[in-house]
Amino acid sequence: MQTEILSYEADGLQMRSHLYVGDSSSVRRPGVLVFPEAFGLGDHAKSRAERLAAIGYVALACDLHGEGIVHDDLEAVMGLIAPLQKDPARTRARAGGGLETLLARPEVDPARVAAIGYCFGGTMALELARGGGEIAAAIGFHSGLATAAPEDAKNIRGKVLVCIGADDPGIDAAQRVAFEEEMRAGKVDWQMTLYGGVVHSFTNPDAGRLGRPDFARYDARTDARSWDEMLRLFDETFATAS
Amino acid sequence: MQTEILSYEADGLQMRSHLYVGDSSSVRRPGVLVFPEAFGLGDHAKSRAERLAAIGYVALACDLHGEGIVHDDLEAVMGLIAPLQKDPARTRARAGGGLETLLARPEVDPARVAAIGYCFGGTMALELARGGGEIAAAIGFHSGLATAAPEDAKNIRGKVLVCIGADDPGIDAAQRVAFEEEMRAGKVDWQMTLYGGVVHSFTNPDAGRLGRPDFARYDARTDARSWDEMLRLFDETFATAS
Repeated sequence: MQTEILSYEADGLQMRSHLYVGDSSSVRRPGVLVFPEAFGLGDHAKSRAERLAAIGYVALACDLHGEGIVHDDLEAVMGLIAPLQKDPARTRARAGGGLETLLARPEVDPARVAAIGYCFGGTMALELARGGGEIAAAIGFHSGLATAAPEDAKNIRGKVLVCIGADDPGIDAAQRVAFEEEMRAGKVDWQMTLYGGVVHSFTNPDAGRLGRPDFARYDARTDARSWDEMLRLFDETFATAS
Repeated sequence: MQTEILSYEADGLQMRSHLYVGDSSSVRRPGVLVFPEAFGLGDHAKSRAERLAAIGYVALACDLHGEGIVHDDLEAVMGLIAPLQKDPARTRARAGGGLETLLARPEVDPARVAAIGYCFGGTMALELARGGGEIAAAIGFHSGLATAAPEDAKNIRGKVLVCIGADDPGIDAAQRVAFEEEMRAGKVDWQMTLYGGVVHSFTNPDAGRLGRPDFARYDARTDARSWDEMLRLFDETFATAS
């Protein structure tokens, strides 16, 4: 496993993202952007990028807040995220910086790049797609589905998959219905999987640290199921594009 | 491929179902009940059972109307189905006859049996589960989700997966929400996947025969995606149970 820290500017911030490459092959491989939960680029997103690299993808675990900062206070983080939610252009700029950086890598086949993300990172993947980003798939795990610019769904070029806990208090039925309507109007190739009995942050083994199990709780079964769904969509997408 | 017609009585009808066994192994294998669309046991459900047998399952494509009758008029069929929808006990009896028959086969491991179904056949799989049927998984493709006995979800022993076209006029958002509430109240391990731009009968290459493409339309991509979802749940379920 080769790792490298890649620095680039985005939305006025100096980003420090982590690149993972599983082997030294000279063949261009599919690339995956991995956007972290709202706290910033911590072990969770990095470990997912490493897992992807171990099975043949070139994965960039992307910085969110600049300088690689990871916050630990939920209220403070929500205060930092709110302006990004109001202005999708800023979210897209942060995500797009990662995309440009990954596309520039010689290990990556630029026709085969996807973006995945967790929580607000899922929103980043979706906003990158809404902004017309050249990605073949955008996948969100317990990702916020709302956007200030639903009309931009018409710009989405790739496939969309969102994996949502049916009991996630932060992504309620009304938000899911609005997303459906947005995707329908944009004529997107989209899928949504709902998991019964599951709340927010189901992929994150450290979700319990919040101490709010009715809001955020790890669920090993759903973590495995949704990871498999992602891999299947990668297989479908990259087999077609290659 | 070995095939055999199995006859049994259920709900006062003489059923003629088709068993498919892919090899002559003496090891007990997972069994799958395959319930057909409302028209009755035609080529579609039989071909799915055969595909399952080819990859190692023992599959019983189940008769629905008795004597192996297949109808071709949608209005007439809806008239036959309506009393079953009103009285889940009758639906469960028809499905249960197939289950008893499959469980009695020496090729089948009775601890590893699932039920799948299409359209009303999906409803049959779900009703079999609601009736407390000994099945490890119930999977419905473009399956009716409504039931006259939602309180029976508490009897469901296995996992539930439903694969639904987001634009299916027969399975609207209100029906999906009611199903969610039913599954939640019953504390079921359930998943629902929605496919954007997809209507009813997306697994059936002959769906176009109805001449109502806004209602029923084959979709090869969604057919493949949902089949894969089923196989993944089988892998998860039968690996655990074995």
